[in-house]
Amino acid sequence: MKTNRTVQVGLIQRSDQGAPGPNLDQTCEKIEEAASRGAQIICLQELFQSNYFCQTEDPAHFDLAQTIPGPATGTLAELAARLEVVLIIPLFEKRSPGLYHNTAVVVDADGTLLGRYRKMHIPDDPCFYEKFYFTPGDTGFRSFQTRYARIGVLICWDQWFPEAARLTALSGAEILFYPTAIGFQEADRGVMEKQASAWQTIQRSHAIANGVFLGAVNRVGVEDNITFWGRSFISDPFGEVLAQASDTDPEILVTSCDLTAIEDTRQGWPFFRDRRVDAYQGLNQIFLDPHD
Amino acid sequence: MKTNRTVQVGLIQRSDQGAPGPNLDQTCEKIEEAASRGAQIICLQELFQSNYFCQTEDPAHFDLAQTIPGPATGTLAELAARLEVVLIIPLFEKRSPGLYHNTAVVVDADGTLLGRYRKMHIPDDPCFYEKFYFTPGDTGFRSFQTRYARIGVLICWDQWFPEAARLTALSGAEILFYPTAIGFQEADRGVMEKQASAWQTIQRSHAIANGVFLGAVNRVGVEDNITFWGRSFISDPFGEVLAQASDTDPEILVTSCDLTAIEDTRQGWPFFRDRRVDAYQGLNQIFLDPHD
Repeated sequence: MKTNRTVQVGLIQRSDQGAPGPNLDQTCEKIEEAASRGAQIICLQELFQSNYFCQTEDPAHFDLAQTIPGPATGTLAELAARLEVVLIIPLFEKRSPGLYHNTAVVVDADGTLLGRYRKMHIPDDPCFYEKFYFTPGDTGFRSFQTRYARIGVLICWDQWFPEAARLTALSGAEILFYPTAIGFQEADRGVMEKQASAWQTIQRSHAIANGVFLGAVNRVGVEDNITFWGRSFISDPFGEVLAQASDTDPEILVTSCDLTAIEDTRQGWPFFRDRRVDAYQGLNQIFLDPHD
Repeated sequence: MKTNRTVQVGLIQRSDQGAPGPNLDQTCEKIEEAASRGAQIICLQELFQSNYFCQTEDPAHFDLAQTIPGPATGTLAELAARLEVVLIIPLFEKRSPGLYHNTAVVVDADGTLLGRYRKMHIPDDPCFYEKFYFTPGDTGFRSFQTRYARIGVLICWDQWFPEAARLTALSGAEILFYPTAIGFQEADRGVMEKQASAWQTIQRSHAIANGVFLGAVNRVGVEDNITFWGRSFISDPFGEVLAQASDTDPEILVTSCDLTAIEDTRQGWPFFRDRRVDAYQGLNQIFLDPHD
């Protein structure tokens, strides 16, 4: 027996305001606005409180890291409780001197910190020097029972790994969130559309393969060498894009998601029924070297 | 150091000719035509020698099954050798009395049978009663070194499982082939475009996630309750559709694939480098039951 359950999902797409204080202030304003428009679960962009500082390898940037719980989660947990919204808060986490993660905190609608996800797949390519800053996560892939839905969080580069989406969905997530910082450098302007298409396609495919809703939140604006392409979007369990934000401007998307679509979709195309878990051991290997 | 390697891939999209003899004859003609247009690796549609007989559960249909090697592979291996083409031949395999598989045979350009793949994920939903006919495969996911490229074969329902594409790519496949029989029933005409979009999206995502070329071959025409939607296509490692066939008519696609794009794509977005094989054990489970 299915119960109708509709959730209002808010995605906040912003541009960097130059410093942690203004970023936090503006984000609080945007959360208020999203909540006033009915949003119940609100996701912020990756490393929401700063610029995307990974364009260079500079030890001074470690000063941007903060503990969890800490000042940002304190302020935002109060706001979550007051507005009765669930928040997904992506932060630069200081775990110990010399040990930092790219992390997302999930706060329930009563202000409780439900837990954190530490980015498991860390990229490293020109202007995205994340391996210098972030220790690969040790949380594994998980989901969190919030007041309004069971949700999973993955971060940016995780997008390209079907394993991450699958494991999070198998843990019961109804909605996958992907806080993100992705854009292009001038040299790649010609292939930007192709990149952005691949970026949306791979995420829509996770929604399809797992029969879940999926929300991706990207930033906008030019920061040093990168133009972030925005286009935050939310997909239904069939891979259809329900709403998509601007590629240049800040925007708040608030979208109604009927969670009963999850079970309907999975009953129509029952992929979970037919997985061959007896034959997937090779996924735990880097490569299956061909011998013939 | 990379060597330029371009391969001509042929996809043969047909409609059922009513009986195994005419289907084999017409397929041989189409293979000749594809080869004359330069095709070097040619993929046929799922269960190419018959109608899609799984719309009912009828033991009489087991008479359509054949041994491998057998008459069809004999004829086609001779043709492959004469034309110097690689063939992917999807057949209803009789392995033993009472034991049948949905199988694809790979024949090299000298007529050698390189091996077979037995469909691992078996669907079962109204008018697609495959669990009645086909024992789930025991081959696992593999690839085959042919004269022109290293290729992997997966079959239809496998399309929806990222695990299958990943494992086949990890075994070294440069091109994934998906012989297919997918279509819609009249009651679903309104959601057909949505279904067909999801079908293409999930496969493009496998090309993206794994940095491989991917060719899907579907049939066309109305058979009993199903209208097969054709749209056979080939995607590059970035998920871009290089060529797509009609949704109603038989068609032969011959597409040039520059295999050096595989390594270029993977160097640009190095997903294989960053997989968290230490954290994927849960993929070997049916579900990760949430406890909170």
